[in-house]
Amino acid sequence: MSVCELPSNRVSSAQPAGSRVMRFRPAADGSEPFIWQGVPVTDYKSPAASHYGVSRAVLAGETGERTAFQLRYFEVAPGGNTTLERHTHEHVVFVLRGQGEVRLGETVHPLSFGDAVYVAPNEVHQLRNTAAQEPFGFLCIVDTIRDRPVEVAPSA
Amino acid sequence: MSVCELPSNRVSSAQPAGSRVMRFRPAADGSEPFIWQGVPVTDYKSPAASHYGVSRAVLAGETGERTAFQLRYFEVAPGGNTTLERHTHEHVVFVLRGQGEVRLGETVHPLSFGDAVYVAPNEVHQLRNTAAQEPFGFLCIVDTIRDRPVEVAPSA
Repeated sequence: MSVCELPSNRVSSAQPAGSRVMRFRPAADGSEPFIWQGVPVTDYKSPAASHYGVSRAVLAGETGERTAFQLRYFEVAPGGNTTLERHTHEHVVFVLRGQGEVRLGETVHPLSFGDAVYVAPNEVHQLRNTAAQEPFGFLCIVDTIRDRPVEVAPSA
Repeated sequence: MSVCELPSNRVSSAQPAGSRVMRFRPAADGSEPFIWQGVPVTDYKSPAASHYGVSRAVLAGETGERTAFQLRYFEVAPGGNTTLERHTHEHVVFVLRGQGEVRLGETVHPLSFGDAVYVAPNEVHQLRNTAAQEPFGFLCIVDTIRDRPVEVAPSA
């Protein structure tokens, strides 16, 4: 997963955040991306052959909150996947929509709504959409202070 | 919210956790609680007049993970509510099922699937199920190291 991109300019701003509700705005067409009012959707990472069709929305942790964690929503288009990678920091994933799978080391696990995943330090991992039409979407929570991911060759 | 109960014996165990999938096991009857394989469901807090009908399941952060956060799922029965309280640490809430509302200071906001809430430090807050039959369920993420909540009188 690309969860670990943390350029210094994305660390929480100096202005403390006030309480807020981030209103969910699902599109009428179930094939559209999940979005939240006031929450920008960005690329998962810079373009690369290692990943495809992944968007990212940061719900908390980059706009003045002082949490030790960040809550992000990733959505993977049909045929898409995150980067196969590892890093010291841990992931906690919670699936919100669609059908997909997670690779943890050498094992692949199917995932659908409600399934949660803990990715231990240095575990090689990747998330993939296995459905033909619906996006595969999941929350991913990480520590605010974390190391950068290291890409792993697919044959590893 | 009662999110902030952290007796010292619930801090992460000494044994590091390995990667795992926590498989979602929804009951056939939609009125049943959300549960995950291998994840115990406990009381939200000790019995008190300040809350009613709330259960708690800790998905990550209390069983050997080294995350700076904990992911918990709270479910509020019809007619139920969490404690009206405040604390220095922040909450991030993500609604998974049902219909409810959150009080933030003096304002009450309706909530349903997908809505997310950021509760700033020292904000008086409470979550309540507003539906007649369905449970109101939400994820709540907090820092592992956090202060204890202070109950607030309803008239405050």
